[in-house]
Amino acid sequence: MSSDPLEPEITAITTLSSADAKWVELQRIDWKDQTGKPRIWEVAARKTRGSSGIDAVAIAPILVHPSRPTSTLVVLQYRPPVAAVCVEFPAGLIDKLETPEDAAIRELREETGYEGKVISISPTIVSDPGMTTANMQLVVMEVNLKEGDPEPKQQLDDGEYIERVVIPLDDLHDRLVEYSKNGYAVDARLHHWAAGIEFARNRKW
Amino acid sequence: MSSDPLEPEITAITTLSSADAKWVELQRIDWKDQTGKPRIWEVAARKTRGSSGIDAVAIAPILVHPSRPTSTLVVLQYRPPVAAVCVEFPAGLIDKLETPEDAAIRELREETGYEGKVISISPTIVSDPGMTTANMQLVVMEVNLKEGDPEPKQQLDDGEYIERVVIPLDDLHDRLVEYSKNGYAVDARLHHWAAGIEFARNRKW
Repeated sequence: MSSDPLEPEITAITTLSSADAKWVELQRIDWKDQTGKPRIWEVAARKTRGSSGIDAVAIAPILVHPSRPTSTLVVLQYRPPVAAVCVEFPAGLIDKLETPEDAAIRELREETGYEGKVISISPTIVSDPGMTTANMQLVVMEVNLKEGDPEPKQQLDDGEYIERVVIPLDDLHDRLVEYSKNGYAVDARLHHWAAGIEFARNRKW
Repeated sequence: MSSDPLEPEITAITTLSSADAKWVELQRIDWKDQTGKPRIWEVAARKTRGSSGIDAVAIAPILVHPSRPTSTLVVLQYRPPVAAVCVEFPAGLIDKLETPEDAAIRELREETGYEGKVISISPTIVSDPGMTTANMQLVVMEVNLKEGDPEPKQQLDDGEYIERVVIPLDDLHDRLVEYSKNGYAVDARLHHWAAGIEFARNRKW
């Protein structure tokens, strides 16, 4: 970044036809329900899905350090669809011939600079199945740090502004609530992961 | 249900214009990025958002019973966008003049028959902010059951087929993975909540 970034700004929102769209389209699904009755469902779909059959990966990074609390890493970036800076796990679309695992390693490196090893990969899960076809996998990656390791360098594209924040796991839920209060938009999946951790820590059953 | 439900079936998928769509539309967002450069983002938006400014709620039900393990409750329903039976938290769109809290109480009652009290409400969180404007709140609700309570009756609309499954919290993550293996599509938010619980239970930090 050679100069201070400007505040992103939305200048117009207009209706878009599916024919003119490059990334996303609307579809009409004609289906028969459980009584045999013909019904219609409207859905948004990405046009970019590759050979993996999976749109995207998100990475839950676990940062392990000899003297600091075990932490995760979230990214802050402006997202025009919600007109706000979002707080999300590092994530990205899977390239045409890429595996989800390779996409996770690549996205973590590009967005955060960190190198990690894959600990677990979720099944294919659906992001918002009442509205879109979008699917993804959640990849947990462990990043082992040594005392005095410098913060690694991000590998961002020109015009890509992504800020990294390291958050101790013990503080994650409350920090996300704080971000929301301060006008950031927290990703629902990240929130649910943090809420699950918080629930398990605070409530015995 | 007076007769056995049929297998739902998709008969056609066609491109839909935003003008013909009732529930969802495509938008083109013109915005200026952090360098001042004009850019375009394509996004899908619901046409139904009401006065709350929030599209939907999901409910994380916590079932507390004198002799059974503390459990949650998930719903199984066919979702045309992903052409599969999905495993999700009970959830639904917020009606025009409804509060998120009222919507949560109503949706839990309609989809599952259970009555619960609201324990916590998340901030407004965004479901898939790289692709859609969709937002929601996660509402944790406690359902207190007594020994011998009968399973309550769902209040479903005609032609609505929603199956309830009670799952002990200790088994949730593994049961969701099992559902995925058996061809069900697990909702990403539910998966993340379960993965957070699983992570906190298995790994001390």
